[in-house]
Amino acid sequence: MRGVVMIKPGEVRVEDRPEAAIVKPTDAVIRLSATCVCGSDLWPYRGVEPVDHQPMGHEYVGIVEQVGDAVKNVKVGQFVVGSFATSDNTCEICRAGYQSHCVHREFMGTAQAERTRVPNADGTLVATPGHPDPALIPSLLAASDVLGTGWYAADAAAVGPGKTVVVVGDGAVGLLAVLSAKQMGAERIIAMSRHESRQKLALEFGATDIVTERGDEGIAQVKELTDGLGAHSAVEAVGTKESMMQAIHSTRAGGHVGYVGVNHGVELPGMELFFSGVRLHGGPAPVRKYLPDLIDLIWRRRIDPGKVFDLTLPLEDAAEAYRAMDERRAIKALLTV
Amino acid sequence: MRGVVMIKPGEVRVEDRPEAAIVKPTDAVIRLSATCVCGSDLWPYRGVEPVDHQPMGHEYVGIVEQVGDAVKNVKVGQFVVGSFATSDNTCEICRAGYQSHCVHREFMGTAQAERTRVPNADGTLVATPGHPDPALIPSLLAASDVLGTGWYAADAAAVGPGKTVVVVGDGAVGLLAVLSAKQMGAERIIAMSRHESRQKLALEFGATDIVTERGDEGIAQVKELTDGLGAHSAVEAVGTKESMMQAIHSTRAGGHVGYVGVNHGVELPGMELFFSGVRLHGGPAPVRKYLPDLIDLIWRRRIDPGKVFDLTLPLEDAAEAYRAMDERRAIKALLTV
Repeated sequence: MRGVVMIKPGEVRVEDRPEAAIVKPTDAVIRLSATCVCGSDLWPYRGVEPVDHQPMGHEYVGIVEQVGDAVKNVKVGQFVVGSFATSDNTCEICRAGYQSHCVHREFMGTAQAERTRVPNADGTLVATPGHPDPALIPSLLAASDVLGTGWYAADAAAVGPGKTVVVVGDGAVGLLAVLSAKQMGAERIIAMSRHESRQKLALEFGATDIVTERGDEGIAQVKELTDGLGAHSAVEAVGTKESMMQAIHSTRAGGHVGYVGVNHGVELPGMELFFSGVRLHGGPAPVRKYLPDLIDLIWRRRIDPGKVFDLTLPLEDAAEAYRAMDERRAIKALLTV
Repeated sequence: MRGVVMIKPGEVRVEDRPEAAIVKPTDAVIRLSATCVCGSDLWPYRGVEPVDHQPMGHEYVGIVEQVGDAVKNVKVGQFVVGSFATSDNTCEICRAGYQSHCVHREFMGTAQAERTRVPNADGTLVATPGHPDPALIPSLLAASDVLGTGWYAADAAAVGPGKTVVVVGDGAVGLLAVLSAKQMGAERIIAMSRHESRQKLALEFGATDIVTERGDEGIAQVKELTDGLGAHSAVEAVGTKESMMQAIHSTRAGGHVGYVGVNHGVELPGMELFFSGVRLHGGPAPVRKYLPDLIDLIWRRRIDPGKVFDLTLPLEDAAEAYRAMDERRAIKALLTV
């Protein structure tokens, strides 16, 4: 089967790879309907994480082709959405709503391909009510990671009615955190963005204010918009020290910062964090927890998170998809299979 | 009047100082009944923070001697307890329960003395039901900071019935976090301590388990006690990188870490924090929020936090009080005035 391999930083190829197969009785194999390139795939692409002939991909929707002997709920032929972190959905950690930290967790990593193995199939995959209208596939694919992650960020930031939230980061996750905050009833949603096309999508998703400044000026702008107090909530969706501190200092004491940008080389200054008095929560999103509700919202066409895909290419053109995202020509690239 | 001055690291003197006086109409002046040395006073004493002829002290109980013209609730002659962070107790941040971040906050700093000025008197001082039995004074003094801080740490760590909490740090704040967790109904309280006298007090305050190991071994011990999952909650009451990481890695994903050790030179590794999935909350404790309840518990002799004072000296012997705490001969030193 064909699948994406990152040879080294900056070099992505689509190659013939071993066929996806059941390894454990709790596995399923799905045929991808669509997959995509994640912002976190750019870390190794840019040489920030080491990489050497690595199969890629952890966002996926598709049709179940095989299931292992121990799989009870997932059926061959179903259209399913899964998460980048697989989970048994029964352990104490899963039951507490942290499926992305399941005691049996295995991270997905070979989903930019024609087919992929999904461990912990019963606790990971959620079937849609039927086979979807093709127009819904981008949104269902978004639920698999970027929407689920944006939703978690807003949830971790305790967004709710009457609240003001700042979203730091105008990538797909940040934009979908805006959408999520809107769904959660936030009164004011301040998107920090310098890019016109992303500002436009943020406004479409529900942003009420755009702040183009960064650093101390950006913080001052947020304070100005919030009676000098800072926001109740902030979403951090980049993963750098600058973005973390932007989120922390934009938030009032006792407020919540939800951070989902995968931290790279971030050393948080303890003293600044201490005196900020904010609540900090984040990490890999427990997408599985939200999937039934997100699928339902998409199925009923209440939200259209698939709009973050502003580039669609066949799997064979994955290299161009990576390039377009790396150069910020595309917010997010969908790969058809 | 007599007051403590830190001349330089390691050198504390009691000197004649200018008389405490009303500066703003919202001030009060109180005559101290007792004051004490804080663990945070040891940072400059040990040269970790710069210090140069600095008056000291931010924990206090005593009798109101004067009030400014704008003070409405606090009356001359009342016995009062205050917090190290003064607050108007009316601003939006105070109303949200974060009085230690009040928009009019001024930190106390001259309370190791015969008298002290208290800014924001109405929003800071809480009167006891009457003049206390002298036996209650150590506990009321503890409420002013160490108990209030330990209570906040347990609260920030979401301690409650059925929960397991780890307490990192066996100083006065850590020990009183144990007492607080017990009051909040924690099922299991794991105190990390290597010092026999402190272990004894921890057990008296409600600890159910003692872990003497530190670092990876300490974390492994906590995991062993919690089905391999880690605690629901952890209190960090030291302020070093080691203690912060001990608390974070002792806690399961989705669990809560309450940190109140004043961070010094701590750089938190973002990637480790990210993948831990814990909730982090702390900073200077909003003691004012808890004071009415804490005073009530003490007044009814339901708790005896004053036991953390294992050394009592007259104000004139403040230098020995600092030495004893610095050398860990004393958990906490009370100064009689």
